[in-house]
Amino acid sequence: MSILVSGAEGFLASAMTAGTSETPDPESFLKERETASSYQVDLVPLNSLKEWHLSDRLRHSSGRFFTVEGLSVHTNFGSTPQWCQPVIVQPEIGILGILVKRINGVYHFLMQAKMEPGNSTLLQYAATVQATPSNYQRVHGGRSTPYLTYFLEPRPQDIIFDQILSEHSSWYLHKRNRNMIIEIPSDEYIPMEDDFAWLTLGQLRKLLAQGDCVNMNARTVLACISYAMAGGLNSGDRIGSGFHASVVESHSVQTSDSDVSSAMTWIIDQKVRFNLDVRRISLRDMDAWVCDDLDIRHKDGRYFQIVGLSVGADSREVGTWSQPMLQPNPGNVVAFICQRRSGVLQFLVQAMAQPGSTDRLELAATVQLTPGDYSGPQDLPPLAEYLSCDDSWIRVNAVQSEDGGRFHRADTAHLVINIPEDHSIEAPENYRWVTLGLLNRLMRFGYYVNVETRSLMACLL
Amino acid sequence: MSILVSGAEGFLASAMTAGTSETPDPESFLKERETASSYQVDLVPLNSLKEWHLSDRLRHSSGRFFTVEGLSVHTNFGSTPQWCQPVIVQPEIGILGILVKRINGVYHFLMQAKMEPGNSTLLQYAATVQATPSNYQRVHGGRSTPYLTYFLEPRPQDIIFDQILSEHSSWYLHKRNRNMIIEIPSDEYIPMEDDFAWLTLGQLRKLLAQGDCVNMNARTVLACISYAMAGGLNSGDRIGSGFHASVVESHSVQTSDSDVSSAMTWIIDQKVRFNLDVRRISLRDMDAWVCDDLDIRHKDGRYFQIVGLSVGADSREVGTWSQPMLQPNPGNVVAFICQRRSGVLQFLVQAMAQPGSTDRLELAATVQLTPGDYSGPQDLPPLAEYLSCDDSWIRVNAVQSEDGGRFHRADTAHLVINIPEDHSIEAPENYRWVTLGLLNRLMRFGYYVNVETRSLMACLL
Repeated sequence: MSILVSGAEGFLASAMTAGTSETPDPESFLKERETASSYQVDLVPLNSLKEWHLSDRLRHSSGRFFTVEGLSVHTNFGSTPQWCQPVIVQPEIGILGILVKRINGVYHFLMQAKMEPGNSTLLQYAATVQATPSNYQRVHGGRSTPYLTYFLEPRPQDIIFDQILSEHSSWYLHKRNRNMIIEIPSDEYIPMEDDFAWLTLGQLRKLLAQGDCVNMNARTVLACISYAMAGGLNSGDRIGSGFHASVVESHSVQTSDSDVSSAMTWIIDQKVRFNLDVRRISLRDMDAWVCDDLDIRHKDGRYFQIVGLSVGADSREVGTWSQPMLQPNPGNVVAFICQRRSGVLQFLVQAMAQPGSTDRLELAATVQLTPGDYSGPQDLPPLAEYLSCDDSWIRVNAVQSEDGGRFHRADTAHLVINIPEDHSIEAPENYRWVTLGLLNRLMRFGYYVNVETRSLMACLL
Repeated sequence: MSILVSGAEGFLASAMTAGTSETPDPESFLKERETASSYQVDLVPLNSLKEWHLSDRLRHSSGRFFTVEGLSVHTNFGSTPQWCQPVIVQPEIGILGILVKRINGVYHFLMQAKMEPGNSTLLQYAATVQATPSNYQRVHGGRSTPYLTYFLEPRPQDIIFDQILSEHSSWYLHKRNRNMIIEIPSDEYIPMEDDFAWLTLGQLRKLLAQGDCVNMNARTVLACISYAMAGGLNSGDRIGSGFHASVVESHSVQTSDSDVSSAMTWIIDQKVRFNLDVRRISLRDMDAWVCDDLDIRHKDGRYFQIVGLSVGADSREVGTWSQPMLQPNPGNVVAFICQRRSGVLQFLVQAMAQPGSTDRLELAATVQLTPGDYSGPQDLPPLAEYLSCDDSWIRVNAVQSEDGGRFHRADTAHLVINIPEDHSIEAPENYRWVTLGLLNRLMRFGYYVNVETRSLMACLL
């Protein structure tokens, strides 16, 4: 579907470009915006949250935004056949959109310095627009959303990517957002708002490598970028060298329709094999969880808590507010194992059922590790031993935040481990080697690649 | 994605072929199989169903097969913002598969004469395999499923179609089946079991036009057939004449990637616009519904009932059994309005949210009418007035059964209305004109075309 990978050569050129005359120094810009605003974020008891009420579920008095509810889960995926947990329910489909524009021939990305109260590093680069209908229809009486109109009625020829993709399915129930990349014609004037800056993909890549500078919602949109060019790479393409050159090749190696069909059939096999049955229940009916005026927590302190957060800020839609947040136990890891196989870099993915998945399972990275989920080393997921591999195998190693609008201090180590060609590795039946090009094509069909993995793919650009 | 429409020219040739030396007279074969078996189907009170228990939900003592549960629905689609209803929950993904084989160059379909207790016409042609994992893993100790192995591990090159598609989303919660068309090489021997016969698509088309001869599960698989050929139709292709020739053209007219993208973006717009929030609740908590020993029914007799059925038969997996069934009020209609536009026959579809949809909404036919849902003429859905159009506009008019394994006497009138080119028609914003070729391409991506519409598409082959 050639039209869907339009812009590939432009993205690659942008990835090879550091600063231009149109871009600020990305770190200085963040620092400057940080000093322009002040924030105060405090943990508070749930019963002190204004307008939020805890009964069978935790809800806002307007009935909008989101609720925290109980979930009863039955599945034959993994080692635990049944459990209860709190889950965030937010049926709205938000827009996560990035505007791009060719300036002097190079794609620039319109990024926003945005404060999210849950993030360990409060101010990070976000997508141009990150808004739910509640936001942009201004339910909470906030400011209007800049640049929104570019995403509400784009001209068909300006759409580079447009698909509904899943969010974090261990913590959200059936949550999904519309991921969009929209191109503004290079001769079209666009006003610059405070907090916004043009960055090249080269600059974004550097920020992604550092960690904690590009927020989750920007990463999921960036992950939709394809380097797959009609006709493959030309020898003249500037693809850099070393590992990054292999990544670009893995994007742009020819993926045939039959590769896609055969991956689809394999994914369908996994959907038939693994089952998942979820039921929304009262928070009061969750086995092993405690709900009180303070928070919602597991009786043994495992997994995560639902806490209250009070926020004072002047750079967000409204000045001060308070809300519940999901605060995971620390130590989350998402890791890809990759290896050059049949002459091209391939990544080991797994079909993974997660309780909040819209369609039962999606492809996940090789290892998704939440330490709180495991009672001891015997419970570790397959291939977790590679997390302590030789340092020389590690190509990406950065800590990134999850969505700081819903999750508090959710810091996930992002790792890419490149194992030598002569190293042999055995994986269970629900694992499969794929190129980045194949992952990108599947992503264009909908719910095929989970958000943790897409976040990792952004770090591989 | 050319590989996915393999077989198109073979299907068209088969559609133009009446009987061959390999096929029986289709109606005589059905009659003959009917006399070879005896059936006894009786309505019985729910509390007399062996092994079924009614409490918060209606369930089998094994915990398998399916349950009937309460559903609370909130949506901004349609005129009713909130309601409760019973719903069938069956998380298993079954296989609906048809084996095809070129015999003397013409595709033949291996069809099974199958009794389904809920159908008004008990014995109809079914797919080669129609089985849930519970069936084929023989939970109820029945007979083995003939031809199953062809679908469990097909050779990649033999797969003509393989996708998980939705079932009836007003009555089932998130139910989906794996629809497969598998080709057996023409030189491969395949043993013929009792109750099975080879039919050409020409014969199936005739049975579909008569109505009540090809069951729901066969129709959803047949609907996956594409007449779209690489390079379009040749002048030598035998495409018949008149309306059928227009249908074949509507299948095979070039659908560009940009047509697909633009349809996708439009569908995403509808998903953002319409919301759907469902919650499984106790049958006892459903407003306006009565559950007792006899059945589960709406207090005003509207919509449908859950009834008990006792079945005696000797041609199914087990000899006798009893089970709950959903029995809708009579009068269901599914209708396409089509019109030659820009030189090609196009069909008016709507984006329709249904409570059991896996992903909120799918494309539906122009009119889906369930009389019990409407309290009077003022509540009729848009364009329902075309159902009483001039007879000369009607191209398809047949009554077909829904899945007779779960639904009792669910007979749906299938109509295709071809309006003159000079007739102008106005439809709401969530309606769109599409070719059959575009619908077929969307179907290959997953949950884009609902089962009622696919059933109608089978009648258009």
